[in-house]
Amino acid sequence: MKSSELAAEKLNKVKALAVLSSDALSSVAYGTEQILIVLITLGAAAMWYSIPISIAVIGLLTILILSYRQTIFAYTTGGGAYIVAKDNLGTTSGLVAGGSLLVDYILTVAVSTSASTDAITSAFPVLHDHRVLIALFMITIVTVLNLRGITESATVLMYPVYLFVVAILALIIGGGYQWIAGNVQAHPPEYGAVVPGITLFLLLRAFSSGCSALTGVEAVSNAIPNFKEPAPKNAAATLLLMGLILGVMFMGISLLAYLYGISPRRAETVVSQIASAVFGRGIMYYSIQTVTALILFLAANTAFAAFPLLAFMLAKDRFMPNMFMVRGDRLGFSNGIIFLAILSAILVIAFEGETENLIPLYALGVFIPFTLSQAGMMKRWISKKPPGWLTPFLINTLGMLTTLTICLIFLVTKLSQVWSIFVFLPIVIFIFRKINQHYRELADELRLDIQTEKPDPKGSVIVIPVAGISQVVKNTISYAQSLSDDIVAVYVGFSDEDMKKMEEKWALWNPGVRLIILRSHYRSIIRPLFKFIDTVEWKKAETDHVTVMIPQFITKRWWHNLLHNQTSLLIRAYLFARQDVKIATVPYRLKK
Amino acid sequence: MKSSELAAEKLNKVKALAVLSSDALSSVAYGTEQILIVLITLGAAAMWYSIPISIAVIGLLTILILSYRQTIFAYTTGGGAYIVAKDNLGTTSGLVAGGSLLVDYILTVAVSTSASTDAITSAFPVLHDHRVLIALFMITIVTVLNLRGITESATVLMYPVYLFVVAILALIIGGGYQWIAGNVQAHPPEYGAVVPGITLFLLLRAFSSGCSALTGVEAVSNAIPNFKEPAPKNAAATLLLMGLILGVMFMGISLLAYLYGISPRRAETVVSQIASAVFGRGIMYYSIQTVTALILFLAANTAFAAFPLLAFMLAKDRFMPNMFMVRGDRLGFSNGIIFLAILSAILVIAFEGETENLIPLYALGVFIPFTLSQAGMMKRWISKKPPGWLTPFLINTLGMLTTLTICLIFLVTKLSQVWSIFVFLPIVIFIFRKINQHYRELADELRLDIQTEKPDPKGSVIVIPVAGISQVVKNTISYAQSLSDDIVAVYVGFSDEDMKKMEEKWALWNPGVRLIILRSHYRSIIRPLFKFIDTVEWKKAETDHVTVMIPQFITKRWWHNLLHNQTSLLIRAYLFARQDVKIATVPYRLKK
Repeated sequence: MKSSELAAEKLNKVKALAVLSSDALSSVAYGTEQILIVLITLGAAAMWYSIPISIAVIGLLTILILSYRQTIFAYTTGGGAYIVAKDNLGTTSGLVAGGSLLVDYILTVAVSTSASTDAITSAFPVLHDHRVLIALFMITIVTVLNLRGITESATVLMYPVYLFVVAILALIIGGGYQWIAGNVQAHPPEYGAVVPGITLFLLLRAFSSGCSALTGVEAVSNAIPNFKEPAPKNAAATLLLMGLILGVMFMGISLLAYLYGISPRRAETVVSQIASAVFGRGIMYYSIQTVTALILFLAANTAFAAFPLLAFMLAKDRFMPNMFMVRGDRLGFSNGIIFLAILSAILVIAFEGETENLIPLYALGVFIPFTLSQAGMMKRWISKKPPGWLTPFLINTLGMLTTLTICLIFLVTKLSQVWSIFVFLPIVIFIFRKINQHYRELADELRLDIQTEKPDPKGSVIVIPVAGISQVVKNTISYAQSLSDDIVAVYVGFSDEDMKKMEEKWALWNPGVRLIILRSHYRSIIRPLFKFIDTVEWKKAETDHVTVMIPQFITKRWWHNLLHNQTSLLIRAYLFARQDVKIATVPYRLKK
Repeated sequence: MKSSELAAEKLNKVKALAVLSSDALSSVAYGTEQILIVLITLGAAAMWYSIPISIAVIGLLTILILSYRQTIFAYTTGGGAYIVAKDNLGTTSGLVAGGSLLVDYILTVAVSTSASTDAITSAFPVLHDHRVLIALFMITIVTVLNLRGITESATVLMYPVYLFVVAILALIIGGGYQWIAGNVQAHPPEYGAVVPGITLFLLLRAFSSGCSALTGVEAVSNAIPNFKEPAPKNAAATLLLMGLILGVMFMGISLLAYLYGISPRRAETVVSQIASAVFGRGIMYYSIQTVTALILFLAANTAFAAFPLLAFMLAKDRFMPNMFMVRGDRLGFSNGIIFLAILSAILVIAFEGETENLIPLYALGVFIPFTLSQAGMMKRWISKKPPGWLTPFLINTLGMLTTLTICLIFLVTKLSQVWSIFVFLPIVIFIFRKINQHYRELADELRLDIQTEKPDPKGSVIVIPVAGISQVVKNTISYAQSLSDDIVAVYVGFSDEDMKKMEEKWALWNPGVRLIILRSHYRSIIRPLFKFIDTVEWKKAETDHVTVMIPQFITKRWWHNLLHNQTSLLIRAYLFARQDVKIATVPYRLKK
């Protein structure tokens, strides 16, 4: 695919929504439930609090969307939390944000595929023993789709995302209709009744749990370069649309859960309970469950779109290895995709597919960059003071304070589940710093003054280890003769008889190259050979480049490699440890 | 270590017994028990049959020892079943024998370490959950000992083997004394009483079970080259000594088991029951248990001494890869040792340390080469007819018929445990044949007529991919200039601006090498580069050797490799697939 075709790979709004929103939208499947799980500790009467809490979450969502819209217009080349924090607060803040997000994308994949597996195994309990395999299978599929390229995966993925939106909206409309028609037998707890034992702390905890519904909102602002032109406008519109859909679905489900008097149960999700109450266990119910499983599976895809982009940006700034900048044939960021797939697969295996406990960590990993990003925007408004800067500054301040509060609530109320962030975040940032330091030192080392530093003229000596006289040796000598007149063939013998025979045979062949015969006292070919090469290097390195020619059999079948080249490998490994010896690999292609 | 020091590595009789006999001697720990487990199905009254059966096993042992002594003198350079069968019965028989033994050595390691682990975890039940880890730890230790060299391991291993012999002899003497002194309360079943339900089939099955005590006897005749001179005489003496010790210990334990009226139990071994009855649960008892565990652990060592030797012989005959002929620095056969360690570790992991079910397979895998080896000796006597050949011929015939019968009994009575031999043995022999065919075809292909075939004179073109101007490029160009006048540097640009800048900079630097600038339409550096190399090869291959020079960063720390050389790797992988392009690796050593 040509660079000019790259534009065709870019996303329009409809496709972008599909690719970038599944993570955010899928949170609807568990957001309300997370709130109810906290409230139920006070009994069914406390369930009404879910309504004001859900409204608060929607309020926070509004603030985040507004804040990120400003970021999109301020950073048109893709301004994730990493860029915003780095630009305005300094490198360390940027790395904290970037590191959190990178780790978070890995968690996204692990958590989403595991949750989707749960949905499937709930429907088909016979599969329950194969949870890990199913989750790994999902990771494999998403990986392959993403390695094949963004547009293709988008086309594949559009339908489930929109089917999910339609299904949930149908559920909300159907549920609302049933309730208005008076067909609902439920007795919701009295709205506004004071429940004994209620505390602000508990309410904030429920609120923070509900905030898990907001994970994934940042995806759009990270992926601006993926959008069709005008990219910022399209991205902002997509973000707004996504926020709207997310808000409607989340609020609708929270309302229905309250009206239908639903409490969280271990064996059945809240969404499943609502769907079952509204439509009965018919085709509608199973459709909703199926698309829910699908959207959770696709949530992993958001991470696969976002991770390689962020890794690319970090690599461009020299905080991650070069390899995340190499674009593959399908223009995807293959290395980032594979890296993400491997790490998330390891998480799934390590947690045996039970990654639910990772959800708070996952949410915290999102709110740290949220906070830093908005703090960065505050700084930006204060520094630049464009006309009318006060309103956006206040929005960002409000947002920053809210997300900061949520971070603190997570740390206080869920420390046992999120403490590990204090371990891995410093490690990740340390690695970023180390990589950066290495690349900077490297650049200094390799810098060359083109006015004064020219290639030094030198001679050349070529050493060819030979094990006998064969087509391979003939081939190698012919090659060496095309490069230098100073060639030495070296043979290692184990006995006088052996050495004499070789000497005579070589004289008879007379290939125009002198042969040095070494005696091995150690029954080892390698040692005398290395000693000889060392001597040549010691004598000649000042005036000549020393090259060792190693024939390499190119076999017709892969398993034939097990039968050859072991000595070549040993020689190569040794020579890599030597100063300044060059290795020329001379392929010899076997016909059979 | 010099070849002349190789003699010092050779084994004297005392050390040879330690290194080569632990497999055979350790069988005493379960040989009697295997017989009793079959007899107990008819009740305690049938236990007396263990005495005549044990005598029969001793008889078989005598025949095997006599037979192998003749082999040792006939094949002084190390005549295992492989050599004897191949020389006298043909290659296929030799490969069947050799293949069986190779697989058997793997089983030896797995079974012995697992059994030793059992002994340990019986003493310390708290370790029971870590069976696999303990067995793998043992394999690691034996591997390291063997990689360090034979003599050293022999010195380490001498003590436990002799301690085991002393402990078992002490048990037999102590037990005999107690019985003569009339201190034993046991009521052994009446000797010679006819037990209802007894059949020849059952007796033969018990006999074959008892034959598991004879595994490992072949080790000495395979390892003759490891002995001090006169090797055959020392080996024969060692074999005789081993047979004597084995016979005395096995018969002694069978007798004590009968006299003390012991039946096999699930939770306690027969040896443990005897030791407990003779000495009580004191220091003597625990010493016996400890050395038993140790000797079972060391039994694995026999396989580590024998496997690399047999692999070496098969590799010399071109039935196994060359790599099993390369001697490592410590004169051990490192590749064979590592190969054996890995495969046995896989078996231990696959069977989760419960390899007891492999014992019949393991025994059958020994008796197949026994049979073939003796059949080979029969053939030899008939062909050569040396003076007085009839007696040894009859001994070998008797031995062959006995071991053949045991093989058939195994197949009939234990098919469910040994059927897999019909799968893996043909596979192993197929692999041997394939490898042999490949090496023979290779030799034909590489053969050269030294009278007529001389190296062809040719020119040389060198291609240097460059990513910019740096010390690395300077270094590479200096090297190329020492080899050829026909050098092309290639740069891949993404934009006109980019390309123009490079062109100007190169002209300014003027290193004496022309630069070709390619335009990438695909945002890929690799593709235009490959296309260019293909074109050069297509134009020049007839008259010139084409070399591509790839700089290789030699990093100071291993993890720095993750930060470099990815593109080099890609280029190298691609060029290996090309006909006739040579790759020169130019090391660039990073200072930091």
